[in-house]
Amino acid sequence: MEARLVRFGVSMDEHLLQRFDNLISRKSYANRSEAVRDLIRNYLVEEEWREKGREMVGIITLVYDHHTRGLADTLTDLQHHFHDLVISTMHLHLDEDNCLEVLVIKGVVDKIKTVTDKLISTRGVKHGKLTMTTTGKGIP
Amino acid sequence: MEARLVRFGVSMDEHLLQRFDNLISRKSYANRSEAVRDLIRNYLVEEEWREKGREMVGIITLVYDHHTRGLADTLTDLQHHFHDLVISTMHLHLDEDNCLEVLVIKGVVDKIKTVTDKLISTRGVKHGKLTMTTTGKGIP
Amino acid sequence: MEARLVRFGVSMDEHLLQRFDNLISRKSYANRSEAVRDLIRNYLVEEEWREKGREMVGIITLVYDHHTRGLADTLTDLQHHFHDLVISTMHLHLDEDNCLEVLVIKGVVDKIKTVTDKLISTRGVKHGKLTMTTTGKGIP
Amino acid sequence: MEARLVRFGVSMDEHLLQRFDNLISRKSYANRSEAVRDLIRNYLVEEEWREKGREMVGIITLVYDHHTRGLADTLTDLQHHFHDLVISTMHLHLDEDNCLEVLVIKGVVDKIKTVTDKLISTRGVKHGKLTMTTTGKGIP
Repeated sequence: MEARLVRFGVSMDEHLLQRFDNLISRKSYANRSEAVRDLIRNYLVEEEWREKGREMVGIITLVYDHHTRGLADTLTDLQHHFHDLVISTMHLHLDEDNCLEVLVIKGVVDKIKTVTDKLISTRGVKHGKLTMTTTGKGIP
Repeated sequence: MEARLVRFGVSMDEHLLQRFDNLISRKSYANRSEAVRDLIRNYLVEEEWREKGREMVGIITLVYDHHTRGLADTLTDLQHHFHDLVISTMHLHLDEDNCLEVLVIKGVVDKIKTVTDKLISTRGVKHGKLTMTTTGKGIP
Repeated sequence: MEARLVRFGVSMDEHLLQRFDNLISRKSYANRSEAVRDLIRNYLVEEEWREKGREMVGIITLVYDHHTRGLADTLTDLQHHFHDLVISTMHLHLDEDNCLEVLVIKGVVDKIKTVTDKLISTRGVKHGKLTMTTTGKGIP
Repeated sequence: MEARLVRFGVSMDEHLLQRFDNLISRKSYANRSEAVRDLIRNYLVEEEWREKGREMVGIITLVYDHHTRGLADTLTDLQHHFHDLVISTMHLHLDEDNCLEVLVIKGVVDKIKTVTDKLISTRGVKHGKLTMTTTGKGIP
C-alpha cells in the first residue's frame, strides 16, 4: 500500500531558514523536507521510549575482555534466558583482548531496559550502551 | 529591524504528519510552524555548543548543603574569580539544609565548561548541572 | 544531626585508576572520594527522574525576544497558573532583543514536565530547556 | 600481561551508601566495586569522545524501508566509500517493510561523525543513531 504524500507550509524568519540551510547542507541532507522529517521522527521515537509498554527495538553494545573468566558463559546464559527478546547478535574481535558484542532486542520498553541492566552490570563488561531505536512501524 | 518571514513547503507521508500533529497538540504547540521552528532551533543550538570558541549562555545549577564548612566561601571565591563570565546568580533555600544556586554564565564554550567543572567538583556540592542555551543572537 | 561517615574499598586495575586520577585532576576534584560520590549522586538523581510521582526540583530556562507581541503576558499567566510549583524566577536582559528567564520549579516529575512543555511551546520562545536536579533530600 | 589490581578507600555518608546499594542491587550489580568501575569507565569514554582525533568505536543503527527506491544502493555505496572505517555490518528484516542495519565503525571521532551524518541524512532512512563506545584499549 502506497502511502499518500501531503504537503504543508512552514513559516520562518529568513535568517533562521538560512542557518538551517547551512547546517543541513553540512550534514549532507538533500533538501529541507528530508531534514525536517528526520527531526520529527526523532522527536516521535524519543517520546515512544517513555511509554513502558510499547514495543520498540533496542541495540545493546558490550565491549569486554574475553579473558575474563566465566564472562562468555554468563553472557550466553543471559541471552538464552531472554531468547524471546534477542532477535540477532553480532560478535567482533576488536583486538587480542577486546570483543564487541552487538545485540538487537525487540520487546516492550520495560523488558529491554531489564535485559540491558543485567548485561551491562555483568563483571568484565567494560562499556555497555543501549541505543533506542524503533521497529519502524507507524514511522513513515 | 523587523525580520522578513518566509514560507517553505515540507512534504511528508500523511501518517507521519498525523502522528506529529498528535504529539505537538499534547505538547501544547499552537501550530506546526512553531513546533518545526523549535526543532530547528534546538538542532542549531546543539551544534553551536560543539564550537569551542563560540559565545554561548550556560546556566549552572548547584544543590548543596550550606552546613558544609567553607563551601559558601569557596563558591563565592570561584564566582569572583570568573566575575567576567558570571552575569547573574540566584540563591534559594530549598529546606533547612539544602540550597540551590543558579548561575548564568556568558562566554565562550570552553570557558563555560571550565567554570562548570570547577564549581561542580567542589566538595559539598551534591548535584551540579550545566544547561546549554543560547545568547539568542542569530536565532530568530 | 551529623551524618555518619562510612568507608568502603573499591578494587580496580591500576591502569584504570591512573586514568581516573588524571581525569578528575583535570576536572579539579580534590580527591577520589569526592569524584566517586559525584558519579554516584548523578546516577541516583537520574533514576529519581524516572519516577513520575517523585518530588524533584527542575530549572526551566527560556530565551525569547521580548518584542514578540503578547509573549510576556502569556508567560506571566502560565506562571501564575502554576504558582504552587514555581518557587522563584530570575529575568535577564541578554541584549536589546533577547531575554533569559530562569524558573525554579518544585513538584512531582509529571507536573514539572507539563509546565515545561507549556512554556517551551509558547510562540516566541526561541530556546527552552529543563534541567533536572534534586531537592537535595536523601542525597547526602 | 596480567594487570595489577589495586584497592582504594572511598568515604561516604552512610545514607548515600545505602541508597547506592539499593540502586545497584536493582541494576543487578554483584558488588560496589563493579558498579563504581562502570561509572568511572563511562565517565572516561564520554571524555574520550570529545577528542576529535582519538580512535574510537561507534555503532551506527539505521531503520529504513527497503522499498525506498535507490536506498539500498546508496547505503552500499556509502559503506564502500568508507570501507576502511566500516569493520562489520549486520542486516535484519524487522517486518515486511522495515530493515535494521547495524554498522560497526572504527576510526577517529571526526571521521565517525562524518560517516554517521552521511548515512543518517540519506532519504528513506527513518531513524538513525550513533552509539559511542570504545575500542576497549586503555579501559581495563
